[in-house]
Amino acid sequence: MSPLGRVAIVGAGQIGTTIGQALMVADPSCGVDEIGLFDREPQTAAASLALGGGDRILATPDLVLRADTIILAVPVGGIVHWVGEWGRRLRPGCLLLDTGSSKGMVVAAMREGISASVAAVGGHPICGAESPGPAAASRAMLAGARFVLSPVRSDPAAMGRAARLVECLGAVPVSMEAALHDRIVARSSHLPHLLAGALAQLCSRARDDGADVSLLLGPGFLGATRLAVAEPEMVASFVVANASPVAAALRELGAELLRLGDMVSGDPADLVRFLEAGAEARRQLLAEPR
Amino acid sequence: MSPLGRVAIVGAGQIGTTIGQALMVADPSCGVDEIGLFDREPQTAAASLALGGGDRILATPDLVLRADTIILAVPVGGIVHWVGEWGRRLRPGCLLLDTGSSKGMVVAAMREGISASVAAVGGHPICGAESPGPAAASRAMLAGARFVLSPVRSDPAAMGRAARLVECLGAVPVSMEAALHDRIVARSSHLPHLLAGALAQLCSRARDDGADVSLLLGPGFLGATRLAVAEPEMVASFVVANASPVAAALRELGAELLRLGDMVSGDPADLVRFLEAGAEARRQLLAEPR
Repeated sequence: MSPLGRVAIVGAGQIGTTIGQALMVADPSCGVDEIGLFDREPQTAAASLALGGGDRILATPDLVLRADTIILAVPVGGIVHWVGEWGRRLRPGCLLLDTGSSKGMVVAAMREGISASVAAVGGHPICGAESPGPAAASRAMLAGARFVLSPVRSDPAAMGRAARLVECLGAVPVSMEAALHDRIVARSSHLPHLLAGALAQLCSRARDDGADVSLLLGPGFLGATRLAVAEPEMVASFVVANASPVAAALRELGAELLRLGDMVSGDPADLVRFLEAGAEARRQLLAEPR
Repeated sequence: MSPLGRVAIVGAGQIGTTIGQALMVADPSCGVDEIGLFDREPQTAAASLALGGGDRILATPDLVLRADTIILAVPVGGIVHWVGEWGRRLRPGCLLLDTGSSKGMVVAAMREGISASVAAVGGHPICGAESPGPAAASRAMLAGARFVLSPVRSDPAAMGRAARLVECLGAVPVSMEAALHDRIVARSSHLPHLLAGALAQLCSRARDDGADVSLLLGPGFLGATRLAVAEPEMVASFVVANASPVAAALRELGAELLRLGDMVSGDPADLVRFLEAGAEARRQLLAEPR
């Protein structure tokens, strides 16, 4: 079992800080020697360090290359860019894992831009808070959370090392091909982020006739729009990287809403059946072994 | 100030029990003499009584008519039906308030079916949990929550009595015409209930290609679909009673999603602007004096 050794985290925001905090208290068998934080915004790295996200700040991006384990925790577009810029200079034998919400484009960039002598694996932790930044980090989020691992090439040793890293974070590794992962999260995560923004704007437009909409916002609105507070650049980055499945999901749901627009004036029994099917779908999805 | 006197609650589910619990500890100045619970399901009334929702069970629906204050806490369709069946037998001077999520149809039924000698007012508490039944009740939900009051006819005394009742519940009365209320909640509440069900079904359909979707469901999915667990009959009832504004909102959002389906393959800057507008809309809606 390779120890994690010197760890470098690129991007010291919410997820980077969360991972750093988890590694700071990882089991000694994980073999963490030190945790360095790099962020292009020095104050973000400093905030992460202050919150226990690592041992020290890496002042320049090239210092990341000295690490034995590198974790990329920037938006998907930034991950792809990082791989293109630094991928050829990675040391043989090092472990590289990312945390982006879209995996196909990341895995393709790693396959193209990184030597097979590097253990590169695509990763996506299924956890997180809506608000960005180190202050929203919490290593408790990772405890028991699933962490998808998407292979870059056929390399069981790399997948094994990535799985061990995930376990050291307190999370549960789940192997899944990037394309399948992307089709699912297009519906379960990427679409809901866009929906939340669209719904907030729809409610805001209700003010056009002078109505004091805010008086009538209850827990339903709050929950349904919570994802709208996520960082726009981060959301746009994973949506653009997963454009085709997200567009398909948007069109499928858009057509369904137009159909529902007719249904609400029709037979109420149809509406009850639709709502029962929704409740049952959610129940089944959450009842499955997770 | 008229005391509330003998109170009867029709429908001992989540909201009926919540209101009963609040009245059980209301300030003595509210003048509550006793709280009777009627539910067509005797075991629901019994469960509510056991949870402190009232003083006693009303065994037959006609016993409700003896009360000085009557609160209707059944689905909107049931409220309209109750008014048609019992409205002409209400005692002059009694206070009648409902709790349905759609107000236009309720207020019209009250105007048509209840004498002006009765203080009848339409009501909608902006609070509630998703899960139905007395077990989900909690009088804490009402503390500081807004409670919309929609006039049935020009009767300031009736509105004043209803406002006093709302204050006795610990909530904050907000006067609003039924039609305006319905246009807003079509967007802020009724549409999100339908969206949650549609989204759960969309994710469930991702299993068609054998994918273990449940492994990838995180906090975003949970929050975005939480309203799908609401009681289908209750949701269908308020949606059908507000069909025209809900249909308009569904069509507006459906068209927006189709437009977004094109946007995700276009200029990423457009997507960032859309997401920023969503975040800003939510921030402004929640920042207004509430």
